[in-house]
Amino acid sequence: MLADTVSDQRQSRRVDIGRITLNVREQGQGPLMLFFHGITSNSAVFAPLVDRLSSRFRTVAVDQRGHGLSDKPDAGYAAADYAADIAGLIRSLDAGPAILVGHSLGARNSVTAAAIDPELVRSVIAIDFTPYIETDVFDALDSRVNAGDQLFKDVAAVKAYLAGRYVNLPPAAIEIRAASGYRAVEGGLRPLASPSAMAQTATGLRADLVPVYQKVTKPVLIVRGGDSKLVSADALARTSRLRPDLPVVVIPGADHYVNEVSPEITLRAISNFVDA
Amino acid sequence: MLADTVSDQRQSRRVDIGRITLNVREQGQGPLMLFFHGITSNSAVFAPLVDRLSSRFRTVAVDQRGHGLSDKPDAGYAAADYAADIAGLIRSLDAGPAILVGHSLGARNSVTAAAIDPELVRSVIAIDFTPYIETDVFDALDSRVNAGDQLFKDVAAVKAYLAGRYVNLPPAAIEIRAASGYRAVEGGLRPLASPSAMAQTATGLRADLVPVYQKVTKPVLIVRGGDSKLVSADALARTSRLRPDLPVVVIPGADHYVNEVSPEITLRAISNFVDA
Repeated sequence: MLADTVSDQRQSRRVDIGRITLNVREQGQGPLMLFFHGITSNSAVFAPLVDRLSSRFRTVAVDQRGHGLSDKPDAGYAAADYAADIAGLIRSLDAGPAILVGHSLGARNSVTAAAIDPELVRSVIAIDFTPYIETDVFDALDSRVNAGDQLFKDVAAVKAYLAGRYVNLPPAAIEIRAASGYRAVEGGLRPLASPSAMAQTATGLRADLVPVYQKVTKPVLIVRGGDSKLVSADALARTSRLRPDLPVVVIPGADHYVNEVSPEITLRAISNFVDA
Repeated sequence: MLADTVSDQRQSRRVDIGRITLNVREQGQGPLMLFFHGITSNSAVFAPLVDRLSSRFRTVAVDQRGHGLSDKPDAGYAAADYAADIAGLIRSLDAGPAILVGHSLGARNSVTAAAIDPELVRSVIAIDFTPYIETDVFDALDSRVNAGDQLFKDVAAVKAYLAGRYVNLPPAAIEIRAASGYRAVEGGLRPLASPSAMAQTATGLRADLVPVYQKVTKPVLIVRGGDSKLVSADALARTSRLRPDLPVVVIPGADHYVNEVSPEITLRAISNFVDA
């Protein structure tokens, strides 16, 4: 399994965008489509989407700051910091405006980037993160994020943990997370994501996202998992009242981890949006 | 007012597509965007959308068969007949694939055309017509359609009728319908739409639309008026379960006549779809 991890990491490269160096996985040619993962995750989780979309897009899946093999500064994990990384990366790649596909934290960051730097962004697919997420939902998320900061004795222990935390993920998605998200340390494996960065990032997720949704002028497709415990049906309804002009899809049977649990329907929803 | 009617009609031209001659109003240059009205209506009702979208699209609003100044054959008012007109028009204009914007009957026809001739269609904005419309809703529609077949003594009588039937339409939209939908006859004004064609069309609207929605592969934006009495919240929910990959917007405060009642938000929804 460690061999897989190394092999997986070899496909990626680091891009110095001036303000930070980010690790990315790039595949395909065409209009630029960037992928931004959720908290504690990394760029590898988009493999099922990228494998298909790279036939007609230049796909670049990004390890966001504090995550994966990207830089992990001691501070700077607010929405504005993440969004500035997105803008800097698009400028460095010199291939914008980009389609941004973001899950959870990545959705928050993508919509924020589109609101701040609209000239760099063509559109956003914002998966399962909206304004109006309830406080108790963020409290539960904090607990889950903290629980991931463990020393695992081996890959089997990692997979057992992941299968318990992400109960609806198919085995292939668990494999990807196990293979891409951990590093060998004395006595076993630890998450690549920085615990301090995760704590700051989780706090930052609680910031009011309403002004960003009010401001954004680029097309945003709002995607919700029909069984999501992060974005409630009420949070989605309030978001639609805030921005009734933004299209919505609800993926039946998917929990928060929409693109990993239901990659096929996520792909169709993305295509229906960007091909319109 | 009759002078306005004549003036309004002068902006349009008739296009012989072989199987039928259709009256269209064309404006602007760019990718082809076609507009298809609801039952008893005509191409003029899209003026508020066309005035804005023609800055970057070649907009062609169509009087569908049996309506406006287009041909009104004695028979042939099923979905397949209307959809074949759309395909024939796109081929005649030689500028496809086209974005289709359809309201009600026009939405049904546009999605059907996209399902039958996907190579001619880029995408569809389907406003307030879905599968699963209830039988009693169609019964009520039949009554409204039949009630419109009147001899009106003058334009004031037409406007009074329209204001009573379309209670949420702004005065400017009533003006457009009054100016564009009637012809002078002995003793007053009658609808341009053929009563026989309307009756056949209304019957055709009851045909099961589920197979079309199952088949269509092109992007379809489903638009519902939040207060629509034609597409119930339940009909929309069932449609989303049928095709959860298709994006949805619900326009708050709009009844069935979404694009005439709420043109600004309809425009933003269309832009968010076609610019993604």
